Amino acid sequence: MSYMFEFHNPVKIIFGRASSEKIPSLIGLLKGEHSSVAIFTGKTATRRLVERMNLRENLEQKGFIPHLFSNIEPNPSSDTINKAASWLKDISADIIVSVGGGSVIDAAKAASLVATNGGSAWDYVKKPEDEGPIKQPSREIIPIIAVPTTSGTGSEVTPYSVVTNTELELKRPISTPYIYPKYAIVDPDLCNMPRKLTGMTGLDALGHAIESFFSLRATPLSELFAMKAIALILRWLPEAVSSPTPESRSNMALASNLAGLAISQTGTIVTHALSY
Amino acid sequence: MSYMFEFHNPVKIIFGRASSEKIPSLIGLLKGEHSSVAIFTGKTATRRLVERMNLRENLEQKGFIPHLFSNIEPNPSSDTINKAASWLKDISADIIVSVGGGSVIDAAKAASLVATNGGSAWDYVKKPEDEGPIKQPSREIIPIIAVPTTSGTGSEVTPYSVVTNTELELKRPISTPYIYPKYAIVDPDLCNMPRKLTGMTGLDALGHAIESFFSLRATPLSELFAMKAIALILRWLPEAVSSPTPESRSNMALASNLAGLAISQTGTIVTHALSY
Repeated sequence: MSYMFEFHNPVKIIFGRASSEKIPSLIGLLKGEHSSVAIFTGKTATRRLVERMNLRENLEQKGFIPHLFSNIEPNPSSDTINKAASWLKDISADIIVSVGGGSVIDAAKAASLVATNGGSAWDYVKKPEDEGPIKQPSREIIPIIAVPTTSGTGSEVTPYSVVTNTELELKRPISTPYIYPKYAIVDPDLCNMPRKLTGMTGLDALGHAIESFFSLRATPLSELFAMKAIALILRWLPEAVSSPTPESRSNMALASNLAGLAISQTGTIVTHALSY
Repeated sequence: MSYMFEFHNPVKIIFGRASSEKIPSLIGLLKGEHSSVAIFTGKTATRRLVERMNLRENLEQKGFIPHLFSNIEPNPSSDTINKAASWLKDISADIIVSVGGGSVIDAAKAASLVATNGGSAWDYVKKPEDEGPIKQPSREIIPIIAVPTTSGTGSEVTPYSVVTNTELELKRPISTPYIYPKYAIVDPDLCNMPRKLTGMTGLDALGHAIESFFSLRATPLSELFAMKAIALILRWLPEAVSSPTPESRSNMALASNLAGLAISQTGTIVTHALSY
């Protein structure tokens, strides 16, 4: 067999316990003083997590101006994303820090896209050809530092964002290299979830990895990532659920990140459902 | 064990037989008509290869202005690189296509760095602290499309360039993310080498992979790349040397590319020798 494939993933991954403490200095490398920092979180758990991290205070100490958007629901709607996009323009956001599960990170990606390229989030989703053209971005988005708090979606390293249209009762993906986060800060200590969520998100990562492994679009590189993710999840998920330790959390965070790298190359059912 | 690592590799890899035929259209995506394209090759074999590829003619047909620099020796000297850098400025190069083994790709990286950031190639190499500061680049280089013709160095996906100082009789590496190629076009059909060169370059890739695997800087991701490279080389190098087929060439090209990805994260002895 001779291979034929492409590989590209521009995200800078910083992985490890306490890596989230580096966020303020990282922003210092990217942006000047008085920069406007948009923080995205979910409504409750991740909002409280950001409080415990003292993220706002730490950013203020470095001379940045933090703003908080904590109204992102699970399965974020196009409406919520559009509101977040207007808010990004209102605060003239220079950079986005998105702390949360896949929904919060997906919402930040789509909101940044809409804020910089106009229109509505729903304009950018994949859709059947007879529903008209998909809006194509042409401008760089506001850079995103993605900080996952679940070990599940791998959204911190993918070019996808799943958008829900509540009116049409549809869920569709945006898929464009423009929405790759600039940095993925994977701090396993932030992925300290209740037992049920650990199990559900771990199975989500397993599903991604298996799907990617058997995908028609699988490449030698995506297979490497997927295979390692599967091995790690089978080895560590039971322990992560029954008696979590820093070690099991670290391995599940790595597995989820690898599953994300795998699907960043192959897509998943939700990103491809419309292309078959 | 909990992990602590970083990962980043911005190179876009396009891998497969005949992938090199895409070079003119790829340049079309990146640069406008009448762009000046600098082609780097070695003195004999890769120069002839570029002729057989009709690269100049194909670029001219697309409206680009190709220029050829084919005076790169094995283990390129700082002098040669500086001359190549002046030449890049003379022809106002907009993009570089480097077709050759590790020496040719390394020379293109260093020449592009010098052309855009000034000084001499030797100013940028790693050196002991008591020899003074290392020149730090601050400007983007002229983008490089790296097209390897050996399955050995993996230079098409690394941030390194090894420079020889003929006066001091020293060989030292430049190591900076600025010199990552924009694209790596890995076309196994171009890596059709004489038996001895297949063996030597294959062992070079094996050395890189093993070294990276056991490196103190090894990460879960570099280990994945290194382990797969080692497995492929042990499986395919004997056949690639004794009775090469498209399949063995494809697998060795993949192995060399993976070994390059591994050392892009960990460095090799030559890039680290001075840091211990």
